[in-house]
Amino acid sequence: MTRTIVASATREIAIGFDRPFCVIGERINPTGRKKLAAEMVEGNFETVIKDALEQVAAGATMLDINAGVTAVDPNATEPDLMVRTLQIVQDLVDVPLAIDSSVTAAIEAGLKVAKGRPLINSVTGEEEKLEAILPLARKYDVPVVAISNDETGISMDPDVRFAVAQKIVRRAMDHGIKPEDVVVDPLVMPIGALGDAGLQVFALVRRLRDELKVNTTCGLSNISFGLPHRHAINAGFIPMVIGAGMTSAIMNPCRPQEMEAVRSADVLAGVDRDCATWIRTYRDLRPGEHAAPASVPAAGGGRRGGRGARLGAQG
Amino acid sequence: MTRTIVASATREIAIGFDRPFCVIGERINPTGRKKLAAEMVEGNFETVIKDALEQVAAGATMLDINAGVTAVDPNATEPDLMVRTLQIVQDLVDVPLAIDSSVTAAIEAGLKVAKGRPLINSVTGEEEKLEAILPLARKYDVPVVAISNDETGISMDPDVRFAVAQKIVRRAMDHGIKPEDVVVDPLVMPIGALGDAGLQVFALVRRLRDELKVNTTCGLSNISFGLPHRHAINAGFIPMVIGAGMTSAIMNPCRPQEMEAVRSADVLAGVDRDCATWIRTYRDLRPGEHAAPASVPAAGGGRRGGRGARLGAQG
Repeated sequence: MTRTIVASATREIAIGFDRPFCVIGERINPTGRKKLAAEMVEGNFETVIKDALEQVAAGATMLDINAGVTAVDPNATEPDLMVRTLQIVQDLVDVPLAIDSSVTAAIEAGLKVAKGRPLINSVTGEEEKLEAILPLARKYDVPVVAISNDETGISMDPDVRFAVAQKIVRRAMDHGIKPEDVVVDPLVMPIGALGDAGLQVFALVRRLRDELKVNTTCGLSNISFGLPHRHAINAGFIPMVIGAGMTSAIMNPCRPQEMEAVRSADVLAGVDRDCATWIRTYRDLRPGEHAAPASVPAAGGGRRGGRGARLGAQG
Repeated sequence: MTRTIVASATREIAIGFDRPFCVIGERINPTGRKKLAAEMVEGNFETVIKDALEQVAAGATMLDINAGVTAVDPNATEPDLMVRTLQIVQDLVDVPLAIDSSVTAAIEAGLKVAKGRPLINSVTGEEEKLEAILPLARKYDVPVVAISNDETGISMDPDVRFAVAQKIVRRAMDHGIKPEDVVVDPLVMPIGALGDAGLQVFALVRRLRDELKVNTTCGLSNISFGLPHRHAINAGFIPMVIGAGMTSAIMNPCRPQEMEAVRSADVLAGVDRDCATWIRTYRDLRPGEHAAPASVPAAGGGRRGGRGARLGAQG
């Protein structure tokens, strides 16, 4: 049985077909968030702290950490900022982290300081990437997200995307990395632009699971890009893609409707044993309500997030 | 390609794998609704009329009509009441109807007056039922819901339920009824009582589609029976079971979250061409607004930037 193990200093999580869906909180990412980028450049981590606490309180299984504050000379800024951000977050919350960067030096800098077993986000099928990232995954014995594109870009042909994933898994094996430590992102296209984007990814996820036997992930909200009322598209996509076999996603856990969809799909897929998480989370909800994201105290209080904070705040 | 054709006097609907999900509105049913039963017995159809209009306005594809006002001597009351109810509803709305009764005489009485091509709800694998209902389906050339239980009750073994469905389809063929006019209900168990109820029905629906090539339906809300916050379980179940191949359900269309799930799944399954229904339905919804019964606090616009391959931000 495929098991991708990720861990913080104190908590280990297994990603797998028979495990609850792994929600990788996406918010600590300055891409497209000018205010957050400006704060991080100034050494102000208040929003990072708030986002970390809120996402964990809302039920994130892991947090993605991206410190890409600028497109100009990221090599100069990103490794140090990745280290600072990672250290702040791992001192604050106890969920495992994903080190998310397109800068190899930032990934390695993060790997040097990250406690437990972080996830590298990401490698692609590009030669240069493969030879930069896979040796790091091997050296630090950590799993890696493998995005199914290569030098030619993102193929619209799902068979090509499968072949790219297969190439990355094989190359990882050449580097001594087990397939269970490769989490494939088959690439989710916007359904508003490509009408069979859903069917494509469901078929791809099934093949990745049945043939390569790997865990999978995706940037979830891509599916609804450009559509109105997109959170309800996301909330429908989650159970469908979980039904197809997807085991994790990079998403916003602070959206109650999407987290309901995750928890509901876990119940229906039989991985929320005795509906225990469902009942614990929603038993006190009044009829007609969604669970609100847990409110958390202002940053700087030194309070750890996690289970206690979440349970106290449902209603 | 499997096509179950249902029709009112003026509107024809095809149920099929490549068609939008067929929502059969369940509300016109006095079972467990004492007030409605009392009204119908008195010849007061105000609630029936209100339920018919509301369900169609909410997006029902068809309406189920049940006139089972009493368990005491239903043969005496139900045929006439079925006829009156059907006539009122078919004069009021233009969606196709399902004639829902356990009383054969009520079904036949309904078939005599129904315009278009109604759906019989239902036959089972019980000998007596098969020989009572299938000749009616043949005589009136209408499709029929086939529930996968027989004299021995509802089997907990999905293979047995598949075998019962197969028996009904074969028997229907013996009566000159095409398999495409049999809509199988594989029977949905409550997930709170049976942890693999979801996996069972997904596997069953896939087999019914791939092997028997029939359309399928279910009493949707059974899945969440006994659980808190059950509409969110239903809303997760809908995309999963549509992903497995289910093509219709008997459900409450007046629940916005469930109808969102249906429309979202139609988009994601590629049957809502160009997302036309989605965009028409939701384009004027304010950002952050949910079409759920209660409004939800929009906690922080989620953003998704990140890797180069990712698309845009949500929020």
